[in-house]
Amino acid sequence: MNTIDAIGYAATSAGSPLTPLRFTRRTPGPSDVRIEILYCGVCHTDLHLVRDALGQAMYPMVPGHEIVGRVVEVGKDVTKLAVGDYAGIGCMVDSCRRCDACNHGLEQYCDEGPTFTYNSKARGSDQATLGGYSDQIVADQRFVVKVSAKLDLAAVAPLLCAGITTYSPLRHWNAGPGKTVGVIGLGGLGHVGVKLAKAMGARVVVLERSTNKAGDAKRLGADDVLLTTDPAAMAAHARAFDLLLDTIPVGHDVNPFLGLLKLDGTLVLIGAMTALPPVIGGNLMMARRSLVGTAIGGMAETQEMLDFCAEHGIVCDVELIRIQDIDATFRRLEQGDVKYRFVIDMASLRP
Amino acid sequence: MNTIDAIGYAATSAGSPLTPLRFTRRTPGPSDVRIEILYCGVCHTDLHLVRDALGQAMYPMVPGHEIVGRVVEVGKDVTKLAVGDYAGIGCMVDSCRRCDACNHGLEQYCDEGPTFTYNSKARGSDQATLGGYSDQIVADQRFVVKVSAKLDLAAVAPLLCAGITTYSPLRHWNAGPGKTVGVIGLGGLGHVGVKLAKAMGARVVVLERSTNKAGDAKRLGADDVLLTTDPAAMAAHARAFDLLLDTIPVGHDVNPFLGLLKLDGTLVLIGAMTALPPVIGGNLMMARRSLVGTAIGGMAETQEMLDFCAEHGIVCDVELIRIQDIDATFRRLEQGDVKYRFVIDMASLRP
Repeated sequence: MNTIDAIGYAATSAGSPLTPLRFTRRTPGPSDVRIEILYCGVCHTDLHLVRDALGQAMYPMVPGHEIVGRVVEVGKDVTKLAVGDYAGIGCMVDSCRRCDACNHGLEQYCDEGPTFTYNSKARGSDQATLGGYSDQIVADQRFVVKVSAKLDLAAVAPLLCAGITTYSPLRHWNAGPGKTVGVIGLGGLGHVGVKLAKAMGARVVVLERSTNKAGDAKRLGADDVLLTTDPAAMAAHARAFDLLLDTIPVGHDVNPFLGLLKLDGTLVLIGAMTALPPVIGGNLMMARRSLVGTAIGGMAETQEMLDFCAEHGIVCDVELIRIQDIDATFRRLEQGDVKYRFVIDMASLRP
Repeated sequence: MNTIDAIGYAATSAGSPLTPLRFTRRTPGPSDVRIEILYCGVCHTDLHLVRDALGQAMYPMVPGHEIVGRVVEVGKDVTKLAVGDYAGIGCMVDSCRRCDACNHGLEQYCDEGPTFTYNSKARGSDQATLGGYSDQIVADQRFVVKVSAKLDLAAVAPLLCAGITTYSPLRHWNAGPGKTVGVIGLGGLGHVGVKLAKAMGARVVVLERSTNKAGDAKRLGADDVLLTTDPAAMAAHARAFDLLLDTIPVGHDVNPFLGLLKLDGTLVLIGAMTALPPVIGGNLMMARRSLVGTAIGGMAETQEMLDFCAEHGIVCDVELIRIQDIDATFRRLEQGDVKYRFVIDMASLRP
């Protein structure tokens, strides 16, 4: 197989600083698209995986799954995109494409598990996928979405993960006019969740532990802020929400949040993959409440999300960084010093 | 207010034996129905409340919320039932009748909480409601359902709690042809859940810890039995179920069960009101699974359930007892020595 020379920034062991890495990408096959990467968002997952916090790291690891760039080459069967288009790649670059989930456009729930954009074994290969902290990437057109030139491309990049992760549950549980949606946690996910839920027509309340972000919440479009550390405010909001988007990235007590849900209300976990402290069964049973979880979204829905954002002028609030500053950026991310997403300007990678 | 003399069996303190109690019922108002009780099921909740296991007991307590009897008197505005009809009363005898839940026929989720058939403050009163271990009962027609004379009335009684508790989630989550439903635990709830799910057209699998009840499961209509203590069998059923009806009455680890759910599958808690050991968020997120809970069902749905049972010839498997043997019966219930519900023949109460 012919290959293409690429360059990126990689971690070579757990906790190592990221350093330049020369590697190869496959030359585009008939249904492949090659993208020159312009911007790549820095997701908290990047930090977790680089540090091997989940025990699944494969090194060298080129992180990055919030990719926006320009199409520079397409295979002969590619119909979706043309050279010169702006395009995006999110968390997946492949899936089995045969199972029920894939056939329903829910590639993220592929029976065999999707192939992630980095730190994932490429299908039928022992080679790890390498992500967006690089100059270019090649993927099958099914896993590439079209990006409107109308939007600020740097600020679009995090939509490929944070955007679809919030959009998918908002749509699935019908956020819209007449619904009250709570966004728990105003971070990378939460800040775009607020914008999306508002654009869908819902009443949006941000739930935060302190008042520090109250001003931001309103600026982003929230109708109200609920201080979760204020018992009186929490009691006053009992049975007030149709949907709660829970972006907290670690295990936490969901019982106080369940009490905020109306009859048939739904709390969606989109951050916490790990163990939750004990859930009280009665908190679900007493109002037919649902505790659910979702992961990103399918490829068709990712395109729908980007089109929705273009229509409503929605992008993320980002701070541009140079690839050379990635380690310092990780440290700021660890300290929560980000409003609300770092994005690497990939021009910094090019000579 | 005029009253009617009634007699029942009551607990007078936590753990006391049940002894005869003379008390009064209200004379029927315009929309009330008076029922001569023929049969009353013995629910595990009766045992819990009599022993004050939940710390909410009001004594003297006349338990019983699986009531079947004959209508002997109706108020002038009663249209639903006539003297001579067979009728049933389940877990509720009143609710606010104004809130959204009540207006949608979901009285069990009443914003103010429904008035339970016993051990509940009657609305606008300090008096505790007294239940079905008695010769007669008076309730508003809204909370009285009609019972078909086609069915064995003694075996109908537990449908008023165990039947509706399983019917409601099966209907709400569309158990039917093409769906695979798992019933976790084959007890009072589970055995009727199997019959109902099968009659709805679903493929039904009983999940049990031992093979002791495998024969019964098949006899009740289950297509298969899954031994939850067999890791290979559990692994073979990964992603196999659309719906799991979890009847386990105490807190328990649901993670192994979540892994059995398909994409978009639902685990419904109908037994465990207390704390569940930590739920792993990823088990929900990786297949958009739902952990939900429901409580009994609304009055319209309770009638629908009884009509469905009459149509399909479904009743509970019961063992008749005399009211004088109630304490020995509680002890057998504690030891799990019941297949699958005890029902008091109220003729034993009459001289």
